[in-house]
Amino acid sequence: MIQGHQTWVFYSKPVILGSAAVGGPFEAKGALAEDFDILHEDIWLGQDSYEKAEKKLLEQACEKAIEKAGLKKEDVQFFLSGDLMNQIISSSFTARTLGIPYLGVFGACSSAMEALALASVIVDSKGADYVLAGASSHNAAVEKQFRYPTEYGSQKPPTAQWTVTGAGAALLGQKGHGPRVTSATIGRVIDMGLSDPFNMGAAMAPAAVDTIEAHFRDMNIDPSYYDVIATGDLGRVGHKIAADLLAEHGLKIPQEIFTDCGILIYKPEQPVIAGGSGCACSATVTYGHFLNQMRKGVLRRILIVATGALLSPLSYQQKESIPCIAHAVSIEI
Amino acid sequence: MIQGHQTWVFYSKPVILGSAAVGGPFEAKGALAEDFDILHEDIWLGQDSYEKAEKKLLEQACEKAIEKAGLKKEDVQFFLSGDLMNQIISSSFTARTLGIPYLGVFGACSSAMEALALASVIVDSKGADYVLAGASSHNAAVEKQFRYPTEYGSQKPPTAQWTVTGAGAALLGQKGHGPRVTSATIGRVIDMGLSDPFNMGAAMAPAAVDTIEAHFRDMNIDPSYYDVIATGDLGRVGHKIAADLLAEHGLKIPQEIFTDCGILIYKPEQPVIAGGSGCACSATVTYGHFLNQMRKGVLRRILIVATGALLSPLSYQQKESIPCIAHAVSIEI
Repeated sequence: MIQGHQTWVFYSKPVILGSAAVGGPFEAKGALAEDFDILHEDIWLGQDSYEKAEKKLLEQACEKAIEKAGLKKEDVQFFLSGDLMNQIISSSFTARTLGIPYLGVFGACSSAMEALALASVIVDSKGADYVLAGASSHNAAVEKQFRYPTEYGSQKPPTAQWTVTGAGAALLGQKGHGPRVTSATIGRVIDMGLSDPFNMGAAMAPAAVDTIEAHFRDMNIDPSYYDVIATGDLGRVGHKIAADLLAEHGLKIPQEIFTDCGILIYKPEQPVIAGGSGCACSATVTYGHFLNQMRKGVLRRILIVATGALLSPLSYQQKESIPCIAHAVSIEI
Repeated sequence: MIQGHQTWVFYSKPVILGSAAVGGPFEAKGALAEDFDILHEDIWLGQDSYEKAEKKLLEQACEKAIEKAGLKKEDVQFFLSGDLMNQIISSSFTARTLGIPYLGVFGACSSAMEALALASVIVDSKGADYVLAGASSHNAAVEKQFRYPTEYGSQKPPTAQWTVTGAGAALLGQKGHGPRVTSATIGRVIDMGLSDPFNMGAAMAPAAVDTIEAHFRDMNIDPSYYDVIATGDLGRVGHKIAADLLAEHGLKIPQEIFTDCGILIYKPEQPVIAGGSGCACSATVTYGHFLNQMRKGVLRRILIVATGALLSPLSYQQKESIPCIAHAVSIEI
């Protein structure tokens, strides 16, 4: 299964039998609204806390993905999920609701692809017939925990990003029809010494570049192999830096195939500063938009490079720089 | 690889080529002091924060495990680790130091066995030649984050437990000599409605019981197959509850083989209330004490059932009960 230093090639090509994306009111007004399975007008989802609202988003994405795969909860052997909340409570409380044996993961906003990569290893190695991979984030829950409560109305610089309110889930199986996971490149932690939590895109760009380079080195293929190479949530600032760095390193990715989930998800006129971010950013854009495009025959091969900033408010207060990571998963149909 | 509903049987039997346990001053006075590779008299480890001290513990455990396996960092393809800090900064910052492709996991105090189980899947499926699994906790860092800073001197009830200051790591390989990982049972989230964070043992006991029952059902073996069945950190209160529940359910585990890492690690006269806890509890006792006993020929087959309470201070404040989990890993020589 290992190829090169850090890439897994899945010879059985685990199939995504069903996937779902759930979003909030801001995503409902976004550029990819029609690719969401469920959209909520109420940021609270009828709950009495933002954290419970996030759990609800993830529960719905999981239940929808299972349903779309034509399965029942009892058929699913393992659930892998991660989120940004302290002690990843959104994932763990969703695992309580689902009752499926559970493996919590944490890679900050790269969690969706970390979960999908590990789920693919499990399915590829005959460790399960059906595995569910999920991830979630909620704008208001994240703002409250990492920054200032939204109610404070604090100003943000133009490099800041907007956390996606949503959740995505994919149900992987041994066989059947649908897009297939063909390989995954697991990233190293890269830290270039940046320490501004309002410029995560710039901090994460070198990690995305490191993983993209590793992927093409390990796979011995050319970027033109893919119809789309999408970073997770670098946003406009970080994505430009990543493109420049790749060009500098001599890896040419045609501009028309190199994009970012955080740029795609919202409309240009939405006040999202540099673009979307959060675990739900790559999760909803991949499990909603991109997989729909694959099922429609518009895309055949995609590489999702989910990026994560592994800081905590405490590590920031203690003057640490921001360690970043990116995991790449290729999906083909 | 899957057997029954939630158990993986590793036919290639990944080998633990090296393992290490690092502890603090309280562990140095404990019952298993001689099984630690490194013991620190200074709870700060010369750092300026408890969080940095915890990172140092984990770095040392990882470096020692790699060294004892006769390898170098560059030989290791993947590093899986988890801890209790918000956004698992101890693991992520250690991954930055090591420079090894990294997969963060979170299962609270069950993280050590979650990491070992997933590392075993990767090695068993030829996803790597060498994988490192680790976990850590630091008493003062955990007290500060989950409860009151130690300096407040707040009183605790007799059911409370003492977070282990330490870290453990194991280096898994495809072949070689040493104890081997033979199977792993991944737990479901079990929540019996308990909500007292000062009685985690009682909250986690039903999760341990659920996973132990699943293990023996899936494997179709009898508890007497093992020389030791050790829960992770139920402590004296929780372990008694687990034993009673198992007996009630008709699963008889001989008293002399059923133990708990949180009971074993400290001496009876140490003021640890109901016993040890934290990610480092099962990590240090397994990767230090138990594996040493196996290498000496005292034990041949062990089952480690690491337990985790998946709450956060916020979920507690929001009046949620405590979702719990347990993952069981069997090691044989």
